[in-house]
Amino acid sequence: MIRIAVLGAGRIGRIHGRNAANHPDARLVAVADPHAPSAEDLAVATGAEVAALDEIVERSDVDAILICTPTATHADLIERGAKAGKAVFCEKPVDLSSARIETCLAAVEKAGTPLMIGFNRRFDPNFASLRRRLADGEVGEVELVTILSRDPGPPPVSYIKTSGGLFRDMMIHDLDMARFLLLGDEPVEVHAVGSSLVDPAIGDAGDVDTAAVMLKTAKGRIVQISNSRRATYGYDQRIEVHGSKGMIRAGNIHRTTVEVANASGITADPVQDFFLERYAEAYRDELAAFLNAIRDGRPCDPTGRDGLMAQRLADAATESAQTGKPARL
Amino acid sequence: MIRIAVLGAGRIGRIHGRNAANHPDARLVAVADPHAPSAEDLAVATGAEVAALDEIVERSDVDAILICTPTATHADLIERGAKAGKAVFCEKPVDLSSARIETCLAAVEKAGTPLMIGFNRRFDPNFASLRRRLADGEVGEVELVTILSRDPGPPPVSYIKTSGGLFRDMMIHDLDMARFLLLGDEPVEVHAVGSSLVDPAIGDAGDVDTAAVMLKTAKGRIVQISNSRRATYGYDQRIEVHGSKGMIRAGNIHRTTVEVANASGITADPVQDFFLERYAEAYRDELAAFLNAIRDGRPCDPTGRDGLMAQRLADAATESAQTGKPARL
Amino acid sequence: MIRIAVLGAGRIGRIHGRNAANHPDARLVAVADPHAPSAEDLAVATGAEVAALDEIVERSDVDAILICTPTATHADLIERGAKAGKAVFCEKPVDLSSARIETCLAAVEKAGTPLMIGFNRRFDPNFASLRRRLADGEVGEVELVTILSRDPGPPPVSYIKTSGGLFRDMMIHDLDMARFLLLGDEPVEVHAVGSSLVDPAIGDAGDVDTAAVMLKTAKGRIVQISNSRRATYGYDQRIEVHGSKGMIRAGNIHRTTVEVANASGITADPVQDFFLERYAEAYRDELAAFLNAIRDGRPCDPTGRDGLMAQRLADAATESAQTGKPARL
Amino acid sequence: MIRIAVLGAGRIGRIHGRNAANHPDARLVAVADPHAPSAEDLAVATGAEVAALDEIVERSDVDAILICTPTATHADLIERGAKAGKAVFCEKPVDLSSARIETCLAAVEKAGTPLMIGFNRRFDPNFASLRRRLADGEVGEVELVTILSRDPGPPPVSYIKTSGGLFRDMMIHDLDMARFLLLGDEPVEVHAVGSSLVDPAIGDAGDVDTAAVMLKTAKGRIVQISNSRRATYGYDQRIEVHGSKGMIRAGNIHRTTVEVANASGITADPVQDFFLERYAEAYRDELAAFLNAIRDGRPCDPTGRDGLMAQRLADAATESAQTGKPARL
Repeated sequence: MIRIAVLGAGRIGRIHGRNAANHPDARLVAVADPHAPSAEDLAVATGAEVAALDEIVERSDVDAILICTPTATHADLIERGAKAGKAVFCEKPVDLSSARIETCLAAVEKAGTPLMIGFNRRFDPNFASLRRRLADGEVGEVELVTILSRDPGPPPVSYIKTSGGLFRDMMIHDLDMARFLLLGDEPVEVHAVGSSLVDPAIGDAGDVDTAAVMLKTAKGRIVQISNSRRATYGYDQRIEVHGSKGMIRAGNIHRTTVEVANASGITADPVQDFFLERYAEAYRDELAAFLNAIRDGRPCDPTGRDGLMAQRLADAATESAQTGKPARL
Repeated sequence: MIRIAVLGAGRIGRIHGRNAANHPDARLVAVADPHAPSAEDLAVATGAEVAALDEIVERSDVDAILICTPTATHADLIERGAKAGKAVFCEKPVDLSSARIETCLAAVEKAGTPLMIGFNRRFDPNFASLRRRLADGEVGEVELVTILSRDPGPPPVSYIKTSGGLFRDMMIHDLDMARFLLLGDEPVEVHAVGSSLVDPAIGDAGDVDTAAVMLKTAKGRIVQISNSRRATYGYDQRIEVHGSKGMIRAGNIHRTTVEVANASGITADPVQDFFLERYAEAYRDELAAFLNAIRDGRPCDPTGRDGLMAQRLADAATESAQTGKPARL
Repeated sequence: MIRIAVLGAGRIGRIHGRNAANHPDARLVAVADPHAPSAEDLAVATGAEVAALDEIVERSDVDAILICTPTATHADLIERGAKAGKAVFCEKPVDLSSARIETCLAAVEKAGTPLMIGFNRRFDPNFASLRRRLADGEVGEVELVTILSRDPGPPPVSYIKTSGGLFRDMMIHDLDMARFLLLGDEPVEVHAVGSSLVDPAIGDAGDVDTAAVMLKTAKGRIVQISNSRRATYGYDQRIEVHGSKGMIRAGNIHRTTVEVANASGITADPVQDFFLERYAEAYRDELAAFLNAIRDGRPCDPTGRDGLMAQRLADAATESAQTGKPARL
Repeated sequence: MIRIAVLGAGRIGRIHGRNAANHPDARLVAVADPHAPSAEDLAVATGAEVAALDEIVERSDVDAILICTPTATHADLIERGAKAGKAVFCEKPVDLSSARIETCLAAVEKAGTPLMIGFNRRFDPNFASLRRRLADGEVGEVELVTILSRDPGPPPVSYIKTSGGLFRDMMIHDLDMARFLLLGDEPVEVHAVGSSLVDPAIGDAGDVDTAAVMLKTAKGRIVQISNSRRATYGYDQRIEVHGSKGMIRAGNIHRTTVEVANASGITADPVQDFFLERYAEAYRDELAAFLNAIRDGRPCDPTGRDGLMAQRLADAATESAQTGKPARL
């Protein structure tokens, strides 16, 4: 039985905490959050106890910690957990600074403890199936990858200001997905363009809300990514991969399968529009992957290095969008 | 070069006349229609001459006639054409009376001349492809056939009154399609229900505008057909066949491939709503099949017997809907 | 807090037991099953205790019972529960005999206790949404309803023999769905045909495995249903309703959203093929509807009468398929 | 009646020649091609006469010429036609050199004669409908345009060598489409990447066979284009436009509407794979637009300037792919 503590009982901490509590080989023992009622709610729902964050990291009755606190605390907590011999699951990103990520990963490597980074979309059953079939060679050698992500609406500008910018906050998921789908062929050239077309306040805050990136890999493969903070028809999440033997894609999930036909045409429901609903299964499978790896003594995946590589791509995209020139890796 | 005369220059006569004129191995030589301007228009457009209907049937410079006149004249014209040694293509139905069809077919058989009945939907590229794959065994043995036909709107009640009723006028296409898809296993039991839900005037005229039929074949296969004189989203024409190894279906053709997504959902265009547009290719391929068969000395298909069998099924359905009891064949 | 006991800890008892245990206003207190390990497994998983079936029905600390035992025991248990003042949720059907259902419902009415029949498909989010939009008049007056249900494969012949036949065992769901979608306009005429095309052993056992039904309602509306014990591409569950203002339909759920394109075409995944997966949300919402109705003192829906009416339609279809004549209600 | 001459009776000349001959307000009077049998075939089929190319341009009984000769001859023929007072329709591109296009357009402007450039895809009924609805504001302000074009297979390397490269030969269509959809907001920044992944011989010839482009417009809008010389499932031609109020897209046309379901999934037909079939209606509507404009004295569209702008974008993309840096316009 793996004994788990969750650090941070916000929206995502509650998801991981409950998934840990429901896993047959794990038990949630402790919850920490500076906001006491949040910690208590989750503790009551899962049979865990509330504890202080500092205490948890050291406790001998905790085998693994789930870091769901604000980004600025991630790297420190990873290091403390690793030093204390804990297996660590950390929400993306490790840090907004690639340099800080590097020192953090060095510390983890020294400690020799397991670390898994929370790129949840890799575990979406649709995308996971696509990746599996790609790896099985069903469409031959990958030639072109197109990834589209559009949020239903922009976050508050206050959040935007501390987010590291769209490329690090939002597109990092797509950059990781690109690497996941490229099966080891790393991007070496990053072209990015961005604009503020959704909300001028986002532009005033120095960020963009509409962006596209083009990657070229070491072997000449091409990746196209587009992002927007707006989609009127739901949370748009699509992947299309062209290979030498065909194309494979994964699309959106509609709210229901209902369609209505009349003189206006034939109308399907909008797509699911909340990321926690869209990726509910992904979160469940992600935590199960972490816990099963620990249980079985297998390496965690995605690794800390995956977190670093995605961050470097996000840095490169940010730089390219600002300078108007491609960045090389 | 097959020399063709078209009898009747109405909507459907113009289609067949032009298709004959464009066929590389045929030439349209004469057009007859009591309404002189219609005959002239078609003649001018195709380089044919206008002639009297009675004359055409006897003319020695005509090899084949296309009968596109009102239903009541079909059987007589077929017989006259056959006696004169012409190959005959006749629009469905041969006659509203199965008995009359039988005497007509006997006359044709005696003459030994080719006769093809215009069940155009067999030649729709989508339905023809479905049938070909069915015959190739792609879904195994046929078990259940579902056919749906819905007109965009009802014809005038004046037409309804002389139409023979929905089962003979409209569903006859689907009854023929059922036989086409059953690959020789003939229906022996017909259950029909009908209602007047679209326009009370149709009910007042003694007909129905919404109907369904269930057929059972000699080998126990089942067919479901539904018809309506109303479809707000276009001319709805669908087939679905379930077999022992899978399912095959053919659907509608949208006006364009455009889709719009917004908060209301994702809306595709309505489907094509005019039968002459929906079946333009079917009419072309149908006439080509007739002309190629004549050119090559091969038998015409669908045959006069197909016309008779569809009519018998339509009679049986009409009877069943009126008596509330199944009819047996 | 509603205190629940579940009678029968088989496949469906486990589903309802767990859903009851997870409902915020209910607690599963007891589980009964002649097969002790099944009862114990469910009891352990939900914190309930194992008890004897006879005892449960009388226990004063039980407010509601969930009847998930074999069909032959349903009517007796409903009556005993009602007499003991319990709210009763019973899996369909109440009994294979309509007469027995009537006496049972009379007993419940006398007791004045709540009874809900488990027609789970009414609670499928897709079908429920379709029904809601239908009731809101989105496609106008209903004219034609088409329902298709195909199981991935036939049950064992030993089961078939005690099932009451395809119309009572399988199509009863579709007959209830038809009534649900007709919004109060009851079927008065039933035409059924059935064949044994999937497995000759089913025919030898006196049942059919492929069947279709046509219903006509008091107001002349038409329903088409088709059933098969075979579908190679998953568990096929579809509804299509045509109304005076348009068409509304609800379709299948594919295993994933992945599609692959190559020279063979563009291939989507098969549809979900296990009814417990396909209807997982339906079972959850169904039990919540039962518990919420009890909590709030509102009437249960679907009612015992819905169970009776569906059974009568299934009886009529069975008779029609055997006699070759329509049955009237 | 507009009197037309067609220069070049190859694949595309035959299309335009026949479409001209079928137009109600036009007559094809002359056909020129150095390959005499090609010219004769088309002349016979359309009732035109065969003539020498040099003679045609001067003939007083010709009102308009259709230039369907090899690219290298386009600019000269446009100039000669304009000087002779003819209306000119010219297949894209005007020339592989933007400088040459500029002098050519200056000559046309001086002559004051109509000139239309053959960007056929603007006239595809699906794309034209999408553009019309975009211009009507149906999805609000355009934010992101994604265009994908994939040929079923690469042309011979001998053709590649004289084609001007993928960006000028193939992507020019998509670059024009981007401008068409941007409704006047011109691209100012071009990022391109290209690789030879389909056929190494294409790379050896100095060209690419897989490429992507990112454009940024004066107003900050973003365009993504991808091209490949390979698509195993047909000729892939798609557009997707995201605006402030929603998304609009236009997709591929399948060979038929047939779908087969079995244990492998549900398979739709491959998409139409030959550009002359896919764009048959586009070619017809394109020539009608040219002839109608001339008949009515309205300006031709797309203009010579459209040809120049697309060529400049193709030049910029070529440069960017070669230097690895964005090009600015």
